[in-house]
Amino acid sequence: MKLLYFLVTLCWLSALSAVCYSQTTRTTSSPDKRIRLTVSVNATGELAYALTFQGQPVVQPSALGFTLSKPALALNRFRLVSVDSSRTDETWKPVWGEVAQIRNQYNELALRLASQTSPAVQVVVRFRVFNDGLGFRYEFPQQPDFQHFVVADEHTEFRMAADHQTFWIPGDYDTNEYLYNTTKLSEIDAVAAAAKEKDIALQAIIGPDAVQTPLLMKTASGLYISLFEAAVLNYPVMHVRLDKARLAFRAQLVPDAVGNKAYLQTPTQTPWRTVIVSDKATDLLASKLILNLNEPSRIADPSWIKPQKFVGMWWEMHVGKANWPLAGGKHGANTANVKKYIDFAAQYGFDGVLVEGWNVGWEDWFGNWKEDVFDFVTPYPDYDIDALTAYARQRGIRLIMHHETSGSVTNYERRMDAAFGYMRSKEINTVKTGYVGRIIPRGEHHDGQWMNNHYQRVAEKAAQYKIMVDSHESSRPTGLHRTYPNWLASEAARGSEFNNAPTLGITPEHTTILPFTRMLGGPMDFTPGLFHMRLNQFESTRTTRVRTTLAKQLALFVTLYSPLQMAADLPENYLKYLDAFQFVRDVPVDWDDTRILAAEPGEYVMTARKGKGSSDWFLGAITDENSRSLPLPLDFLEAGATYEATFYRDADNADWDTNPEAYTIDKQRVTRASKLTLRLAKGGGCAIRFRKL
Amino acid sequence: MKLLYFLVTLCWLSALSAVCYSQTTRTTSSPDKRIRLTVSVNATGELAYALTFQGQPVVQPSALGFTLSKPALALNRFRLVSVDSSRTDETWKPVWGEVAQIRNQYNELALRLASQTSPAVQVVVRFRVFNDGLGFRYEFPQQPDFQHFVVADEHTEFRMAADHQTFWIPGDYDTNEYLYNTTKLSEIDAVAAAAKEKDIALQAIIGPDAVQTPLLMKTASGLYISLFEAAVLNYPVMHVRLDKARLAFRAQLVPDAVGNKAYLQTPTQTPWRTVIVSDKATDLLASKLILNLNEPSRIADPSWIKPQKFVGMWWEMHVGKANWPLAGGKHGANTANVKKYIDFAAQYGFDGVLVEGWNVGWEDWFGNWKEDVFDFVTPYPDYDIDALTAYARQRGIRLIMHHETSGSVTNYERRMDAAFGYMRSKEINTVKTGYVGRIIPRGEHHDGQWMNNHYQRVAEKAAQYKIMVDSHESSRPTGLHRTYPNWLASEAARGSEFNNAPTLGITPEHTTILPFTRMLGGPMDFTPGLFHMRLNQFESTRTTRVRTTLAKQLALFVTLYSPLQMAADLPENYLKYLDAFQFVRDVPVDWDDTRILAAEPGEYVMTARKGKGSSDWFLGAITDENSRSLPLPLDFLEAGATYEATFYRDADNADWDTNPEAYTIDKQRVTRASKLTLRLAKGGGCAIRFRKL
Repeated sequence: MKLLYFLVTLCWLSALSAVCYSQTTRTTSSPDKRIRLTVSVNATGELAYALTFQGQPVVQPSALGFTLSKPALALNRFRLVSVDSSRTDETWKPVWGEVAQIRNQYNELALRLASQTSPAVQVVVRFRVFNDGLGFRYEFPQQPDFQHFVVADEHTEFRMAADHQTFWIPGDYDTNEYLYNTTKLSEIDAVAAAAKEKDIALQAIIGPDAVQTPLLMKTASGLYISLFEAAVLNYPVMHVRLDKARLAFRAQLVPDAVGNKAYLQTPTQTPWRTVIVSDKATDLLASKLILNLNEPSRIADPSWIKPQKFVGMWWEMHVGKANWPLAGGKHGANTANVKKYIDFAAQYGFDGVLVEGWNVGWEDWFGNWKEDVFDFVTPYPDYDIDALTAYARQRGIRLIMHHETSGSVTNYERRMDAAFGYMRSKEINTVKTGYVGRIIPRGEHHDGQWMNNHYQRVAEKAAQYKIMVDSHESSRPTGLHRTYPNWLASEAARGSEFNNAPTLGITPEHTTILPFTRMLGGPMDFTPGLFHMRLNQFESTRTTRVRTTLAKQLALFVTLYSPLQMAADLPENYLKYLDAFQFVRDVPVDWDDTRILAAEPGEYVMTARKGKGSSDWFLGAITDENSRSLPLPLDFLEAGATYEATFYRDADNADWDTNPEAYTIDKQRVTRASKLTLRLAKGGGCAIRFRKL
Repeated sequence: MKLLYFLVTLCWLSALSAVCYSQTTRTTSSPDKRIRLTVSVNATGELAYALTFQGQPVVQPSALGFTLSKPALALNRFRLVSVDSSRTDETWKPVWGEVAQIRNQYNELALRLASQTSPAVQVVVRFRVFNDGLGFRYEFPQQPDFQHFVVADEHTEFRMAADHQTFWIPGDYDTNEYLYNTTKLSEIDAVAAAAKEKDIALQAIIGPDAVQTPLLMKTASGLYISLFEAAVLNYPVMHVRLDKARLAFRAQLVPDAVGNKAYLQTPTQTPWRTVIVSDKATDLLASKLILNLNEPSRIADPSWIKPQKFVGMWWEMHVGKANWPLAGGKHGANTANVKKYIDFAAQYGFDGVLVEGWNVGWEDWFGNWKEDVFDFVTPYPDYDIDALTAYARQRGIRLIMHHETSGSVTNYERRMDAAFGYMRSKEINTVKTGYVGRIIPRGEHHDGQWMNNHYQRVAEKAAQYKIMVDSHESSRPTGLHRTYPNWLASEAARGSEFNNAPTLGITPEHTTILPFTRMLGGPMDFTPGLFHMRLNQFESTRTTRVRTTLAKQLALFVTLYSPLQMAADLPENYLKYLDAFQFVRDVPVDWDDTRILAAEPGEYVMTARKGKGSSDWFLGAITDENSRSLPLPLDFLEAGATYEATFYRDADNADWDTNPEAYTIDKQRVTRASKLTLRLAKGGGCAIRFRKL
């Protein structure tokens, strides 16, 4: 590998001592040379990095470093000890995913640095430059006089070159379930944005200047830049705070109950800090940088891990037909109702039935900071779990168990072995976990180091029991599903349930931003597939509604990637539109290939995917509140092959607001040479199945 | 039951409304009429209580009440709803203890009160007046509009009548391992006292005015008053802060990580607040008020619970012969060394051998606030636990397992099932738990509600596994060994290990105060029995030493009650004094009767106990730094019987400072009519076995 470097040494001689300062600069580039990284240690020992894309500044020279609280140490003045460089080009196969194999190609630069004030403390900053961006992390090697330490603050900066358009949600230690705001950097006001949100159960806002990662920006010249992180293990989530004067974001780690950020022991490392950059929005969506920076699977035999589609009575509870607690006469998780879902799942080819509200404790589960809420092994008396297990087994269906912790994680951790053992005894191999409410240990946050360690413990312990995990209200994923492929999906963003939130709901643009932000980290259990848009079906006073067309709901099964997809609506709503429901039945949840055909954040996304082990392709196209026509490039189809394309389109008069359930279904033979255009209604979409003939 | 009460009602008529204020007073007395309680609700709704002993004020009128943080409510103005009174006189048998049966006799007064500001909130204050003092608690009955609530502060007061002599240790959220200070109330300065302590691993001082309970006072007229609490379950420890101007102590509950004190759900209650009072010091030591206020045993079949005496290599580690970690060449818990202790235990009739440092993790166990410290199931490679289990079984000995948590309680709770299961698989049925260091969940304290719930969980889970518990660094006991008789003992005070602490060590008076304070709550694993007083045996530079005579060490086996007694010294030190060691071999750990023959806090204690199921009596007498002669009343011996009394006395020239190991042993026939005097050396003591002939 060719490395360019410059070394400037300046020496001064004072009356008492000879002091030798040097400015050292190292650079490396992406394999395709378009992205260039510069790292420097200046005359006073300050460490900085900068990034360009085809000569355009992406990150201006930005500081790196820490403040430690134990030992008390400002780790921000360094002496360069050594530099290593290397290149990697390899291909690996995920257990499941959007593509069958992934190329991991980067040039690496690793600087070993010693603290100027405490020379016994050394840190390695490792940079990897990919064709789609940069990842870097701090590594703390084993060293005799630096073993246990406590991070008070991480000072990693991301200094922007101009006042970019930005897609952001407020920085918050406990929730990521916000709608996105689109403003200039200089217009960010997280406190004002958070104040508009009335439907989030628990907020812990950081300040007006704090926003969450993944953070998307678009420059005036058309570059797409994403700030994020990968492989958050044993470390808190990194939010960022903006210094508007310098247009510089600085890491804001989530504190623990006493204000510390992370308790670490050498050898260790931080998560990767990432800057994904492209001049094409579609390339950013196709980036595998986050996955490449995660460690390979720790599950030796993943044969028991299966992507799956499921149904359940969850949406009944949201729209007022049923409820979680036994009391009140609307208990959803009763034996007869679950049987109905099992029948429906079996008839229409689903894998699982999610059952919420099955276990004792829902009477006072929320809002009391109560520790002993659920025991995870005691069904309500009207829920005959053994009979249902047998009934499901006969029909080839698995129940999916819900473990709502109510945020009482100490309680869950005490009971996890018993709970997972109970699941296995009931032949249940998928758990949906939930963390609604304030965390216990009290003072901890959903996004802190302690909770991130908890989510990891859940993934690891579940794997011991061969259980797959779908976590809700957890910190947003950072590619850990590569390492723990039994951790199929997370919620960790505003999902479809907010269609029932009265204040802001889900805007039509929301699902066109998610793939550019939250979903860069991993699959989302968004729960698409709502066919009935006005949510006053059971409570006539209800004013909430779904702001999409029905066709867009179908398209979301493709545009929002997840190996675990819920068809969220009620069986009776699907039975009204069985022809449209056919797409939900057909669409796979595991893929051999994915092509992002068109995308613009906040406007539209068009994605095509090829089913795992299949020659069929599926396409989803969605738009924001605007109707639009998008050319449909079909060159992903196999050369020489003809496909029967089934189009699930918005009807001509469809409109999310006035006529959401209007759709048309038509079929057409196509080849890769076919020239077609897709028309999407306001808040609309289109789903297509391409069946190879 | 005869109840005296007064009711004064005053009504004013204002221009706008008729407001009716009443001052209500209720009184009741102890069954023997010597103690009298007065409870009043004054014209503004303030609730107060007062206590007298034979007409002398013990507690001046003192406030009762709370501030709640959720719902936000000052619960300090009440309307009296109803008053109930009753009397109880019953006898119960402890599973083990100082006496074979206990009389529980009291008069009860229960006031049901409604909050003036939130009438939907009702509280019952229940008072029980015994012949030896008062217990009262707050009860929160189930009520429709008051379910979950959070205690911000408890305002219970104890207002003293004069500037009493007081035996106190500094109020501290994390440790109770202080030496006692003896001052007037007005001279209390807890910060200054705490600053003198250099050998306590972790301190969390509350303020100059804060001291711990049990708190002992002596009035100028010779009353002994103890402020304490009983049955601390699901609630933090109560320390007290002194308002010197009013001579009033006010409850200072231990906060959690966010500053709240307790999270409660109706129906619930606080622990009992207690005032033990007597004009005889010996009666205070004999009080069973704390036990009587605890609930009966929750262990249906306690047949597996056995008081026991044990040895172990723990003291080797303190004096520098051995160490806990494997590294360093002095690993104490190696197979050969443990075999030696098993042999010694078997030869001299002990039940168990405590093994500390047996498991991996001691290399960096302390001071790092590290969460994953020990796993409790991985022995060091030089410790062959299976071979030792078999070796011990052949000799009728049980190993005692050590679970040091390092304060990382989340880690322990995750692993407790596995750890207790592992113990059972190794035929080990007693665990010594340890909580050295800062608590995890971070921000919690050893004495907070969360940790008190943890200690209870340990007792309960251990009972499921038929395991007995000896907890160290836990909050001080409050009689819960009645409810959980498998919780044999706690440390929870300055124990014998501090003989090796260089700064203050253990003063000769310390063990004459412990029975008046810490030990009112329950057995202490003090670990007496040190025979070698100058602790430079293995490290010649060591200056620490034991400040007692050898005879006093023997007497401590009687004066410091515990069903779990360690003979703490090294076998080689016992082999030097086998004639004296005979007393340690003979002394029981369970008793049918106990008589406190003489006592003055800070000066001397003389206690006689009758062995369980035996006709033999054992006596211990100890003194402080002063030599003294005490008459020996023998009227506890059976009438008409003759006993062979074996006296283990200080030699004439014995002195804790100059000649600590000098003792004499002599035998004498005695009856209850014998008139004898015991001479105790400076820092000395005397142990006697009375064998019925």
